[in-house]
Amino acid sequence: VSPPASLRNASPAELVELAREGDRRALARVLSLAEKGGPGGRAVAALVHPHGGGAHTVGITGAPGSGKSTLVSALVACARDEGNRMAVLAVDPSSPFTGGAILGDRVRMSDHALDDDVFIRSMATRGHLGGLAVTTPEAVRVLDAVGFEWVVIETVGVGQVEVEVAGAADTTVVVVNPGWGDAIQANKAGLMEIADLFVVNKADRPGASDAVRDLEQMLDLSSPREWRPPVVATDATSSDGVPELWAAISRHREHLVASGELATRRARRVHDELQRIVVERLHERARTAMDGDRMDALEQRVLDRQIDPWAAADELLDSDDDSQG
Amino acid sequence: VSPPASLRNASPAELVELAREGDRRALARVLSLAEKGGPGGRAVAALVHPHGGGAHTVGITGAPGSGKSTLVSALVACARDEGNRMAVLAVDPSSPFTGGAILGDRVRMSDHALDDDVFIRSMATRGHLGGLAVTTPEAVRVLDAVGFEWVVIETVGVGQVEVEVAGAADTTVVVVNPGWGDAIQANKAGLMEIADLFVVNKADRPGASDAVRDLEQMLDLSSPREWRPPVVATDATSSDGVPELWAAISRHREHLVASGELATRRARRVHDELQRIVVERLHERARTAMDGDRMDALEQRVLDRQIDPWAAADELLDSDDDSQG
Repeated sequence: VSPPASLRNASPAELVELAREGDRRALARVLSLAEKGGPGGRAVAALVHPHGGGAHTVGITGAPGSGKSTLVSALVACARDEGNRMAVLAVDPSSPFTGGAILGDRVRMSDHALDDDVFIRSMATRGHLGGLAVTTPEAVRVLDAVGFEWVVIETVGVGQVEVEVAGAADTTVVVVNPGWGDAIQANKAGLMEIADLFVVNKADRPGASDAVRDLEQMLDLSSPREWRPPVVATDATSSDGVPELWAAISRHREHLVASGELATRRARRVHDELQRIVVERLHERARTAMDGDRMDALEQRVLDRQIDPWAAADELLDSDDDSQG
Repeated sequence: VSPPASLRNASPAELVELAREGDRRALARVLSLAEKGGPGGRAVAALVHPHGGGAHTVGITGAPGSGKSTLVSALVACARDEGNRMAVLAVDPSSPFTGGAILGDRVRMSDHALDDDVFIRSMATRGHLGGLAVTTPEAVRVLDAVGFEWVVIETVGVGQVEVEVAGAADTTVVVVNPGWGDAIQANKAGLMEIADLFVVNKADRPGASDAVRDLEQMLDLSSPREWRPPVVATDATSSDGVPELWAAISRHREHLVASGELATRRARRVHDELQRIVVERLHERARTAMDGDRMDALEQRVLDRQIDPWAAADELLDSDDDSQG
């Protein structure tokens, strides 16, 4: 279905205004602009930035098939029960939200399909290097600015960029399952460092208490922090443990505010993001610099093993840009 | 164990020379330099570049627990049977090579532990954005230059960077398992585009023939290419199907050479790599530009919502670098 003429010809400013008034199709278009980048994305970033800061972001990450999406669906219900609006960004090629139902895990997001205060968006995982790391915060900023109290970012907890994206939330929830040694996997994949909360999902299965114990032991061994990540056992399909998880997320949110940690984290995030954007801008400039005959000639010299790629890059950059020394 | 004094004080040139003579500790140190980047990494890149081009690289990717490492171990045996040397780069936090044995999958790499013509290296998946995408080709270049006929790169087939890294090999093998809808997952994660060969591993399990059929049907539907990726069923723990897989890899290698596709791919790879290195260099410059009071002031203005991050990045870059317009 193509959008009505009013939307099709709307400027970014008009679209952002409509999205802030609750128009879902306008919101979808604003998100597309933000994800696509370029001048449209720039315009959106500038338009939404003044309105942001009200949303609490929750990153949920874990192995494929660990039941993240079912948990997210249950959390949507918790937020709605409290009268709050929740948006979900699914950054996971195997997420049922993006169409890939695995392991018989059926998502119950259809419960929320007609609810105007719930918004679900799946992010494409393809695209250029660093794509997700740049586009996900842009999408979060949009959802924040249009008034969602909660923005959930669901990512698969495998892969460098995906773990970073989940770790950039206010509250990061790491989901593991009993039995598969997931607790140890989580440790290896760098998930221990980013977790504010652990969930042992599918806690009806054998080994759930072992998984809880493993996680608690790892936490005992890690350097003490002001907030010790709680470990919550859930069975998302029956909603067992979900109220406890929601309470723990809310407690973490309160802790962040009361301790001043929220401001610290957001400042660090602005720092990281600014750095990423600077790199992205330089990336664009590099693409321009490399689009020409000089690039072709240098590639040939690399292939002929006359010059190594790093020296070739220097040659390209130095003649293009003499001011940098 | 710290290296002998002769190694500890050796220059990159001496280390590369020793590594090319077969000194494994020297090789390990050269790889560390290459992975760490900086001046040492640069020196290594320049030293090894003239010697490269002889190795055939094989990317092996698939979901965690799909049995990639057991397959790799079996392929090592195949290469050794033919009297060739094989190196393995494990880019997977859940790989048994890096210590994380999951699902009872025991690696049999110990078979090869005392074999001087086999070399196994696990790559750290943490570090800065784009890290693996830059450091993995550097490590491959080193292993190529010291004379391994085969270099295998094992990555988990989930995650943007990880898929790209596996796709940058001469021959890319995508491993799926029966029953979990992995074939459909593979399609979604962009694995169909990069696969030169499919392996249905754990083919002793129910659903193996369905998985083969699903993959063949997807291949029927995709646009015809000169090389149609074969689908091989294996049971890596019993080595069933492994000789067929090895034969298929060897056939693909011959096809690449005979069709001229190998040269085309390597040229494209040099292009991509040069682009990545240019971006990496610009990244370094950005870090320098952002290490100062001006950055702090801009961050504060972003936090105060006076300026959006993109505008802040422009301000930072334009005053730092007036020559770029």
